[in-house]
Amino acid sequence: MTIGIFLSLKSILRKIIIKTRYRHPGLLKRVISSCLFLPLILFIIIQYILMRNKNNFGNRKMVEYADILEAYQRIKTEINKTPVMTSRTLNAMVNAKVFLKCENFQRIGAFKMRGAFNAISQLTEEEKKRGVIAHSSGNHAQAVALAANLLGVKATIVMPSTSPKVKVNATRDTYGAEVVFCDPTIKARSETAQKLIEQHGYTLIHPYDNEDVIAGAGTAALELFDQVNGLQMVFAPVGGGGLLSGTSLFVKGYNKEIKVIGVEPKNVDDAYRSFISGKIEVNETTNSIADGLLTNLSELTFSIIKKNVDQIITVSEREILNAMRFAWERMKIIIEPSGACSLAGVMSKQIPVENKKIGVIITGGNVDLTDFFNLLENKISNF
Amino acid sequence: MTIGIFLSLKSILRKIIIKTRYRHPGLLKRVISSCLFLPLILFIIIQYILMRNKNNFGNRKMVEYADILEAYQRIKTEINKTPVMTSRTLNAMVNAKVFLKCENFQRIGAFKMRGAFNAISQLTEEEKKRGVIAHSSGNHAQAVALAANLLGVKATIVMPSTSPKVKVNATRDTYGAEVVFCDPTIKARSETAQKLIEQHGYTLIHPYDNEDVIAGAGTAALELFDQVNGLQMVFAPVGGGGLLSGTSLFVKGYNKEIKVIGVEPKNVDDAYRSFISGKIEVNETTNSIADGLLTNLSELTFSIIKKNVDQIITVSEREILNAMRFAWERMKIIIEPSGACSLAGVMSKQIPVENKKIGVIITGGNVDLTDFFNLLENKISNF
Repeated sequence: MTIGIFLSLKSILRKIIIKTRYRHPGLLKRVISSCLFLPLILFIIIQYILMRNKNNFGNRKMVEYADILEAYQRIKTEINKTPVMTSRTLNAMVNAKVFLKCENFQRIGAFKMRGAFNAISQLTEEEKKRGVIAHSSGNHAQAVALAANLLGVKATIVMPSTSPKVKVNATRDTYGAEVVFCDPTIKARSETAQKLIEQHGYTLIHPYDNEDVIAGAGTAALELFDQVNGLQMVFAPVGGGGLLSGTSLFVKGYNKEIKVIGVEPKNVDDAYRSFISGKIEVNETTNSIADGLLTNLSELTFSIIKKNVDQIITVSEREILNAMRFAWERMKIIIEPSGACSLAGVMSKQIPVENKKIGVIITGGNVDLTDFFNLLENKISNF
Repeated sequence: MTIGIFLSLKSILRKIIIKTRYRHPGLLKRVISSCLFLPLILFIIIQYILMRNKNNFGNRKMVEYADILEAYQRIKTEINKTPVMTSRTLNAMVNAKVFLKCENFQRIGAFKMRGAFNAISQLTEEEKKRGVIAHSSGNHAQAVALAANLLGVKATIVMPSTSPKVKVNATRDTYGAEVVFCDPTIKARSETAQKLIEQHGYTLIHPYDNEDVIAGAGTAALELFDQVNGLQMVFAPVGGGGLLSGTSLFVKGYNKEIKVIGVEPKNVDDAYRSFISGKIEVNETTNSIADGLLTNLSELTFSIIKKNVDQIITVSEREILNAMRFAWERMKIIIEPSGACSLAGVMSKQIPVENKKIGVIITGGNVDLTDFFNLLENKISNF
């Protein structure tokens, strides 16, 4: 469209020039000197207006505060409004009022349900008929499987052949998705998914590089601010950046004064380094118990995080484990290592939180308990 | 007083008889024949009225519904109003609406805090000055320690020398009680406590054979009925019977139509057998992972249970473990084996619960997690 306007403006100008040159030879120079940049200026103005109206991000729609509000209306009847929990001991330890938004109590045991449902529910009827696909062995797989199931959409999940049986069973038997195995490499996963997309026309639901998934993830913060008044700071873990970008978008849209802190395992600190260097960095190892935070940022999540997050801090494996153990032993809630990162961030006291009201997003609680229950099995078999 | 009334009635009667015999010799026989049993009948009526008003139980005050209401006013600012949790999966499994009253989120991680605080807060100033004592290695020890601490009362806890270090530390260091060790036998425990009581004049806070402890325990059900409308049945575990008697007293006082079911491990089914035989039975083994339910009923708790509980059922160790695992894996809450018993009772389907609203008291969540976290420690030490 822009090029069309440019071309028609050009041809109109050419006609004017030919006529003017013939009738008023003196006038032309002055007109040319003042109007030389007119098409260019017009082009720039039009581009700017189009960009503002459409919120283009490259070819993509940019996510906004309003999208999170809309996402919440879309998903709220199908998700759990998860509780906010507090601990006298924790408050005393950090000398602040800390409110844990417990997404471990979300359906499928993690916040991922919010984004998956928001994304799949907005597909066209045609896309829904063809089905969706995800490649993941973690919470996102189960979220896509359950959300698709609730919406009557066929889901295919590509999982590494080494995935724990309990996860395969949950995805396939409990939530009714088709599971397709692949070699346990990232390359094999995305190639297998791509092949299936080409064959069947499935729509890929990416775990974080997807605007609707990000908007859905932001609804956890929306609920938290509805449940607790006067929060001054929010901590959220960062892996691919879906949760942190959704959270920061909501928080800054709600009140720019509220600080948003991302927390990342020190061993896989790509987001921390990206935040400093200004370009997307990658990890050399995956040595962290926070297995949900091993991925790198995408252009989309990074652009949101750069704009809306105040600081990213890192925590050691020891700090993650201590925070997890605190939640289990003292608060009696099961949180996974990735979910414990934000709590570890608060407990690390890198950020001054004294006398503040602090929101902490606990992302999930899916932990393999087989070893622990095997110990108890042994105990009762001796009775 | 009763004897006084009896004697004065007797002397009045004697005067009437003497006068009548003198003036109307014929009348006397008829009067005597009709009034012969009058003093006896009066005596019985007066005794009955006194008994009803005072609710005497031997020499002890009997616990009543009103005591639970009063206990709640006394303790409510110092305890947690614990949340009620639900699970779609659980509801589908038993085809009912199940509401878990999560006392694992209570202070010190168990309902015991309610009874301990209620009992200690009602001691006289003199008794408070002398201090309290309890013999326990479990939740009651920590409850007495914390409640005493909050009330500025000195607490001494007699613990077997084999108690896990983590429990000793919590009782002593976190809650500030004095810990006295004894040989690991029930006899040594009560003898050690008795000796200290004689030496220092401490008041013993029994874990369940205590009216104020029972009234305090009943406040968990009080809160549950405040949080959920229309419950038709309540399940609670039974060990010494403090929780079950407090719960049943509240429930039947609230609405006689609501059923109260006690749940006990099959391996230590003394309460179940007592309920059938009508006399207090004991266990021959302590072979249950539900280590909070190994004790026997007391006369006090048994008298309340006989009157207010509709049924006691038993569950196997396997059923207890399955219920515990369900809560951990699917609901992401840490509940201890004793606390899982009532849930196991519902899941066992021995009692028809279809389409009913069911309350389930989850008593606590104190589980030793050392082994589990050692596994994770190993994992991070390899990074």
